[in-house]
Amino acid sequence: MSDFNLKNYLSFWSKKVDEWIDNYLKPHSKYSVGLTEAMRYSVFAGGKRLRPALIYSAYGIFESYFDKVTPFASAVEILHTYSLIHDDLPAMDDDDLRRGKPTNHKVFGEATAILAGDALLTKAFEIMTDKKINQDIPAEMMLEATHKLAVATGDKGMVAGQYADIKAENSELEIENVTFIHQNKTAALIGYCTELGGILGFANEKEKEILKNFGQKIGLAFQIYDDVLDLTGTTEELGKNAKSDLENCKATYTSFYGVEKSKNIAIDLINDAVAEIEYFKTPARPLVEIAKFIVKRNN
Amino acid sequence: MSDFNLKNYLSFWSKKVDEWIDNYLKPHSKYSVGLTEAMRYSVFAGGKRLRPALIYSAYGIFESYFDKVTPFASAVEILHTYSLIHDDLPAMDDDDLRRGKPTNHKVFGEATAILAGDALLTKAFEIMTDKKINQDIPAEMMLEATHKLAVATGDKGMVAGQYADIKAENSELEIENVTFIHQNKTAALIGYCTELGGILGFANEKEKEILKNFGQKIGLAFQIYDDVLDLTGTTEELGKNAKSDLENCKATYTSFYGVEKSKNIAIDLINDAVAEIEYFKTPARPLVEIAKFIVKRNN
Repeated sequence: MSDFNLKNYLSFWSKKVDEWIDNYLKPHSKYSVGLTEAMRYSVFAGGKRLRPALIYSAYGIFESYFDKVTPFASAVEILHTYSLIHDDLPAMDDDDLRRGKPTNHKVFGEATAILAGDALLTKAFEIMTDKKINQDIPAEMMLEATHKLAVATGDKGMVAGQYADIKAENSELEIENVTFIHQNKTAALIGYCTELGGILGFANEKEKEILKNFGQKIGLAFQIYDDVLDLTGTTEELGKNAKSDLENCKATYTSFYGVEKSKNIAIDLINDAVAEIEYFKTPARPLVEIAKFIVKRNN
Repeated sequence: MSDFNLKNYLSFWSKKVDEWIDNYLKPHSKYSVGLTEAMRYSVFAGGKRLRPALIYSAYGIFESYFDKVTPFASAVEILHTYSLIHDDLPAMDDDDLRRGKPTNHKVFGEATAILAGDALLTKAFEIMTDKKINQDIPAEMMLEATHKLAVATGDKGMVAGQYADIKAENSELEIENVTFIHQNKTAALIGYCTELGGILGFANEKEKEILKNFGQKIGLAFQIYDDVLDLTGTTEELGKNAKSDLENCKATYTSFYGVEKSKNIAIDLINDAVAEIEYFKTPARPLVEIAKFIVKRNN
């Protein structure tokens, strides 16, 4: 595995998920064609599919029947897409660009963007609870996976983080508040992804805990490194407006610690996470490679 | 049962659901207290709890251990509340009043209203997939109930209806388009409610089908009768602006058929639904009473 190529690895899983979603996400009626179009626009707007790759990678520690994982990995990416659409709305971060393309509401209007987000969120739960799609997964396991997704992304997780983020704009903050935002807005779902791989792989409670902690740590590092990139990257590299956090008076690690120290905090978190995941030895190699990539990327 | 009092009946189930939600829906962190407050504001803004009452009533045809039903009935009401918050947003119907009170975004602002809606939607799925809360319900049944909720409320149901409604404003429409909107925006979830009662009561496929059809018919009647009330009711009676459909150039039955004929279509649908539900004899009495109430109410 010394010739591990992360780019090819990510692209391999990305294709699986994209093909599955492309085949699955179709208009239901002639009266809702535009809704499906808006949903598909953001799903296929060029994401790195980091979350699906983490799910597959964590699952790969235990089993290798990867087709079983694809609907769940697709559902998580679909849910992630909803959160991006709603975050970009005028009432929220009011972003015009996402992954180098106009944001959903810029193309389809605000009402459709809100509804496309609502439909994608609902769709994630529709997929994860579908017994026909997930024939090889026991009902108890489907329930555990679905329930933990809801916990990670609702008012105990992602939405709480986004709420705190909005409220934090233009305020004097403690670093604990910024950490809460990053942990909930980003790290909760990433921790869920690595845990989900374990759940689907019949991991025991201890193994699931290790995977979840790993994901939460690299998720926090991811968000801290995003704060760094916002200051050091160009709009072209980022695919969104550079220095937008600064302009929007967002809560960031860099506003407390500056660029260099924030970078080091992120790197320390990654090293810490990588050390813990070595519990699983060689099979965790892809997770380690993804973790290291988080603090090397330029977008 | 000749002394059946619908008001007391609805109030009885309403209390069960309200107590359960009141106890369950608490802030998760000091950084998200305001999010929980916004969620609770709309949940406790005085809804009739018609959907929970339909779930309990349909369930009562088969079993009488009603406590088992309460978390699911609460989850459905919570999901219904999310749809009201998002429908009222400035980018959607832009309503200032709901059930006689200022709408969510009027009180908490647009960003918080969007997030409160997102969190309530996610919360419904969190509750329905929680094995600790639903200890008496088999995993397969929980999955069926959750999956069908997602189908009824996403891009094959409620959200599709809301999308078509938004797109229909100020347009020349066919009556089929208006019916599609009403069936998806309103009737899909109501049909799910009556079916859910059957699912939880171990109903067979035929029984579930009858219950679902019943709910979809009275749901369509409900929405048609809403079109009527919008023209004939006062703002005080309705708890929202009278003639708002007309002002917003909404797709309505009354714009095709006028008030009297629309009223008769709704009454015919109710009579039809009531005739079909007689399959279940006496135990379906509460469902019959609720159905008849739909075309007698003034708000």
